Parts: sequence; structure tokens; C-alpha cells
Amino acid sequence: SINPARLLSRLVELGNIGRDSGGQLSRLAATDSEKLGRDKFVSWIEQAGLEVTIDRIGNIFGIWKPASVTEEAPLMLGSHIDTVINAGIYDGCYGVLSGLEVIETLLEAGFEPSQPIVVAAFTNEEGVRYAPDMMGSLVYAGGLDAEIALATVGTDGSVLGRELERIGYDGAHEPGFMRPYAYIELHIEQGPVLEREGVQIGAVENLQGISWQKVTIEGDANHAGTTPISMRRDAGYVAARVITFLRDRAKNSNTPTVATVGCMEFQPNAINVIPSRAVFTVDLRDPDESRLQQEEAALAAFLDELEHQEGVSIEVEGLARFEPVQFDRNIVEMIEGAAKSRGHSCRRMTSGAGHDAQMIARIAPAAMIFVPSTGGISHNPKESTSDADLIAGANMLLDVVRRLAAK
Amino acid sequence: SINPARLLSRLVELGNIGRDSGGQLSRLAATDSEKLGRDKFVSWIEQAGLEVTIDRIGNIFGIWKPASVTEEAPLMLGSHIDTVINAGIYDGCYGVLSGLEVIETLLEAGFEPSQPIVVAAFTNEEGVRYAPDMMGSLVYAGGLDAEIALATVGTDGSVLGRELERIGYDGAHEPGFMRPYAYIELHIEQGPVLEREGVQIGAVENLQGISWQKVTIEGDANHAGTTPISMRRDAGYVAARVITFLRDRAKNSNTPTVATVGCMEFQPNAINVIPSRAVFTVDLRDPDESRLQQEEAALAAFLDELEHQEGVSIEVEGLARFEPVQFDRNIVEMIEGAAKSRGHSCRRMTSGAGHDAQMIARIAPAAMIFVPSTGGISHNPKESTSDADLIAGANMLLDVVRRLAAK
Ligand SMILES: NC(=O)NCCC(=O)O
Ligand SMILES: NC(=O)NCCC(=O)O
Repeated sequence: SINPARLLSRLVELGNIGRDSGGQLSRLAATDSEKLGRDKFVSWIEQAGLEVTIDRIGNIFGIWKPASVTEEAPLMLGSHIDTVINAGIYDGCYGVLSGLEVIETLLEAGFEPSQPIVVAAFTNEEGVRYAPDMMGSLVYAGGLDAEIALATVGTDGSVLGRELERIGYDGAHEPGFMRPYAYIELHIEQGPVLEREGVQIGAVENLQGISWQKVTIEGDANHAGTTPISMRRDAGYVAARVITFLRDRAKNSNTPTVATVGCMEFQPNAINVIPSRAVFTVDLRDPDESRLQQEEAALAAFLDELEHQEGVSIEVEGLARFEPVQFDRNIVEMIEGAAKSRGHSCRRMTSGAGHDAQMIARIAPAAMIFVPSTGGISHNPKESTSDADLIAGANMLLDVVRRLAAK
Repeated sequence: SINPARLLSRLVELGNIGRDSGGQLSRLAATDSEKLGRDKFVSWIEQAGLEVTIDRIGNIFGIWKPASVTEEAPLMLGSHIDTVINAGIYDGCYGVLSGLEVIETLLEAGFEPSQPIVVAAFTNEEGVRYAPDMMGSLVYAGGLDAEIALATVGTDGSVLGRELERIGYDGAHEPGFMRPYAYIELHIEQGPVLEREGVQIGAVENLQGISWQKVTIEGDANHAGTTPISMRRDAGYVAARVITFLRDRAKNSNTPTVATVGCMEFQPNAINVIPSRAVFTVDLRDPDESRLQQEEAALAAFLDELEHQEGVSIEVEGLARFEPVQFDRNIVEMIEGAAKSRGHSCRRMTSGAGHDAQMIARIAPAAMIFVPSTGGISHNPKESTSDADLIAGANMLLDVVRRLAAK
């Protein structure tokens, strides 16, 4: 079994990197605070005696390749260490640190793997600073050209490639340089299902489709006191209509569709000026591709209607679009088997969040293990999972790795 | 008659002070760019041979008190030179520069007034940086303590008193030091009425009530992909409900009530995080006080309903509250008479915008003259009034001043 104290203390140590003076954790991709997190992770990889490798998109790999191993294709474990704004400490880091923990445990136990085992921390999984999300693993899997990804302009106007250079994580290796034999990602569920059902382990068999769009409404600035309602072209009001439209559809649909408007900006953003411009993001998800397309089409039709009704002009930019992904059935069954052996309750489930596993599934058999999230809360400082569940999950990962890397 | 070339060229010259590299005019109260506008105005007052006086709240006065005049109470003309964000050049400046123009015209014509004539530029009329709006004239009229006003924290975190010190406009005089004999303000209408009806001059007989509030919605950040709609406490969604509620009420009311949400901020403002907080402003106006109170009550009741329905908590802060104001009947009639003499069409009307006249009306008979706004557009760089109308309005002001200051 893994070393619980080492794993739990590292989670807390990494979770304290990137806190501001008010105690908020925000370790956005390729920022100074994320650099500190990367440095810490790299130091732990080195301590464990693994080889550190960085690729051009800034993905970090800790490679364990005993001299006896002739196989080239590694078994890859991983996730990410970037966070959202005002984040919890488990999202991503739990998978990365458990991957390292599993390798160290196997090393210490004198385990002889059939192929190399690698722990990966992928760049910009959250997508908060640079869209799309899962960018590092997407590039690694060949789904996005590294040059294009490196040229991405962030929400703060920065350019990813220059930021990676600045923090010293613009590596030399070509993304995809090791094609994994298999990929497994351990993660907190970030949703309410396991806790609500009292189940300890999720064997994630698929992951819903994700559609991210940026919508810009152009109306007309005018005086808040003198402009009759009938003469207004109020970009803020139109944005509000979109938010309520999306919510009402998702609520009344009897499907698992979710829709979120997370970012919003008004211009000129003055109390007595009708907004001339509203810019906001739409995050639409559904496990069913045709339904996701329906939702996108319904939004597009509603935006058309609003253009005519309200006399505004509307532009839509696609930020990310990923179809639902099916994980590898063999690995899912292996996870179920490992849970049974350890006496954990387990259910198959769909991931509501996007994950690096979703991208790596393009080039290798992949699956995920979930552990419960207290209250279903994530992307929030209150994100938590009990120590017992964290340890159980890491041991599950250990068991699955042992099976997949058995000689 | 006034000197049209001097007035029009000064309007353009002042209108070019405070433009950014993109050509946008933003001369927010007590900023560096507003200091440049103030300096220019003061230099013109001095050129005209008037006495420059600044009070503690930064109001600027150009005083014409010929030696022969023994009366102390001045006839005051004025408005403001601060602007909104991305503004036009006429709002406020037209009244201030016309006031100066009228005094210079009278001086040059050898006119002997019965009392001092003063042109005033009041601090922070727009209220965009510091609430409430019309702050300088409000303090001058004794409606707000100077100390409290000077301690106001702006939308950018600055403190008004410190900013006035920094730009050198923290004067020595006590606000209200001259109690005017009468006050007249010339202004662009900023609304569509005069243009729509083909009328040249508005004799403003009243001004609607203004209610400004800041609303803070506290929900819960959570993951956009994993959180079922039914479990969300989405502050952004609740804010959108308030916007559509206000719009629907105002639209369906058959009253002149207007409601605007001009400022909006989401937190953490990340694409895949349900907003934990939304902060926005509400600008409610109605010419009828009891109706304005009804609208405020309806909003409060709806916020209560949302708190229960959506499980969020809501805080409301009052930023400004002014009852409707009735202007002085005699001056309004004098304006009508002057329009008739000049052969201008004229109608009595209500001001939809707030103005310094509204505050000075507390301490002196006051009224306003409006000229048409092209397309009813204001608080927008497209704000415009024809030169002919600008000149007609300034000559109207001249005529009314001549009558009010006749020996
Ligand atoms: N796991 C996770 O939070 N990923 C971020 C990408 C997403 O929004 O789903
Ligand atoms: N005249 C004018 O635009 N005043 C600003 C205050 C307001 O009415 O919002």
C-alpha cells in the first residue's frame, strides 16, 4: 500500500503554493505562482530518483524506466497542477501526487514493471487563463498544434508560449514523444453522485461533451435617465436574457444538460450608462453528442432572435469543443476488479468535468478513478475529500498500475 | 448675442482633453485628465478677468463682481466638466462654457449687472467614479456634509478628498459660501423629446427622482460541468433575473419609469466556475415620488423572493436617492418669454437626467434650458447637437441672465 502520510502532506504543501495574502489559492496556468508549484513537483520527482522531462507545451513528466525494462511505451499516470481562481487543493494535484506516490511505493517495494511508468502534470488543464481547457494533454495527443497552442492569448492578454519561457517551462521535447501503453487518471469526482449514493469508488467509463463559447453583444451606450425603454439597445439586458434562457432550458429539459455563464463583462460599466457591450462565456455540456449539438443550435437560434428583437449585434467565438469520450472497457473493468479486491463499493459513472484522460484517450487506452467530493463541491476553496477516501483512491491506483505493469 | 466661434471652439478644445490613445474621452471626476480640463477652464476664467475661487469640495467658481455692485448674492450659471466613461463633449461642458461665454459677452458689451454673476463647474456631477452624482452641488447646497463627501471611496478604490488634494483642487472656501440669488443651467437634453417634436428650446420645469442602489448577490462557486442545475446557487443567474425583472416592469408599466443595470461584476469570473458573487448597480427613475417608491419596493420584494427561491443571500446598499424636483415657475416663464422673443419654438419639459440645478434648487430659485440632442443620444461619443442649436441655447441663456440681472 501507498504511504498515506507522504501523500497527504504533499497535497497540503502543494495546496499552500499560490495563496494570496487573503489565503485564496489561485495557481493559474503558467503564472509565477504556478511556477512555484511546478518547481515543488519537479523537486519531488527528482527526490524519487525519476528522470524529469519537459515538453514544448510545458507538460512535466517524471519517468521511471528501470535498466531492465526494454519496452518503450510507458504506462502513464497523471493530471494537472494548475488551478481555477479561488480553488481547492485536490482538483488535479490529487491525481499527480498519487501518480508519483504509486511510483515511489513500487520503487520502494522492489517492484519490477514490464514497461516504463511515468507521472505527468499537463499544462493548463483548467482553461481559465487560456482556452481550450486540457490544452497540454490535447497538444500531447496531437489534437492541437503546439505552435497554435503556444500562441494562445489569455484572458489577461498574456501569451502562453511567452509565459512558459518566462517561468522556465518551455521544454525541448516534442509533445507526444512517448506514446503511452495506457493512461490512468485518479481524480476527485467534483460532483455529488458518489457521496449521495454512499459509494467509495467511481469507475469512470465516459466523459460528457464540452462546448465553450464567448459571446459578444454590441448595443448602444445611452443615458440611463433619459432614454425610454423602447429606444434602448441594452447589451447587458440581452446578456441577462441569454443567461435565463440557458438556465430555463437546462432546468426544464429532463436531461443531464448543464449550462453556465461564468464570465461576464459590461462596457462602459458605469452606473448611469446603458451598457454598450456585454462579453460573456457559455459553458454547455452533455454526455450525448447529438443533444449537445441541439443545445448549441438552440442557443444560436435564440441569439439570432435577440439580434432582431433587441436591435443588437451578436458575435460568437468558439473557445473549446470536445465530443463525449468513451473510456477503455478493459481498464474500467480492471478498476471494478481492484475495488472489489479491496472491499470498496464501486459504480460506473460519467465524468461531468473535463480531464486530461479525455485527451490522452485519443492515443492510448485510458480510464479514470473517482473518489467522493464532500457536498459535491469543487472549483471552490471548500472542495474536500476525506483522508480515508484519498488514501483508498491512491491504493486503487496502485493496484491497477500493478496489474497493468505486471510482467 | 454671444460669440459663437469662441463658444464652439472652446467646446471642442475642452472636449479633446482627457482622450486616451484610442480617442475615447473619459474625464472622470478628480482624475489626472479632469485636472487638465479644470486647468483649461480656470485659464479661460482668468483670461476673462474673473476671480477664480475653489471650495473644499473642488467646485470652481469664476466670479464677476463689478466694483459698482453692492449686492452680495450672485446670479449663478453652471454645470460640470467631469464626464462618464467614453463620453461625448457636450454633457456639462456646454453649460459651463456657455455660462462663461455669457459673462464675457456682457462684460464686452459694457453691461452693468444688478448683482455678481458667477459661472460654476461643480465637482463629480456624473457620479461614475464617486456616488452620489451631483455631489459638488449637493454639498454646496448643504445636502451632504463636505467631510463625508470627501471621504467617499470611488469605484476604483480612490478617496475623493485625497484625489482633489493630489490634483490641487482642494480649495479653501466653505461650500455654500455664496448663496445664489438665482441659478440657471443650460444643458443638452440628452433625450429624444425635443428632436422628435421638432422643438428648439426646452423650458425645464421639473426633474425626475433618482434612486441608485448597489446589489451584491452571494451564491456558491462550484464546478460548471459537474453541478446539477438543481444544486446551484448561481449568483450570476440571480443577477440576470433582476435585470430582466426590472426591464419587464419598466416596459409593461405605461409609466415613464426607467430602470438600468449599468455596472456588473462576476466573481471569480472564470469560464468553468459557477459565479459565487455578482455585484451590480440599479438606476431607477421616475418623475413621481410615490411611483419611484413603488418601484423600489417591488425590487426589494423581488430580491427577497430570489433569496428564498435561489438560496442566495442578497445585500443592498443605497448609493444615491433624490426626490423629484420642481423648478422655479418665474424663471421657467422667463425662459419661455425669451424663447418667444427670439422666435424659437419652446416646450415645458421634465429632465430625465440629474443635474446640478436639482441640488442648487434647494437654496435658490433655479431652472434649466435644454437644447435638442441628435437621436436622443448621450453618455456616448456620438452625443451631438447642431451648432445652430448650441448657439441658440447660449443666446437664450444670455437673454435670461440679462433679465434676471437687470438693474
Ligand atoms: N477537472 C476539471 O475541473 N477540469 C477543468 C475543465 C473543466 O471545466 O471541466
Ligand atoms: N446630466 C447628466 O448626465 N448627469 C449625470 C447624472 C445622471 O443623471 O445620471
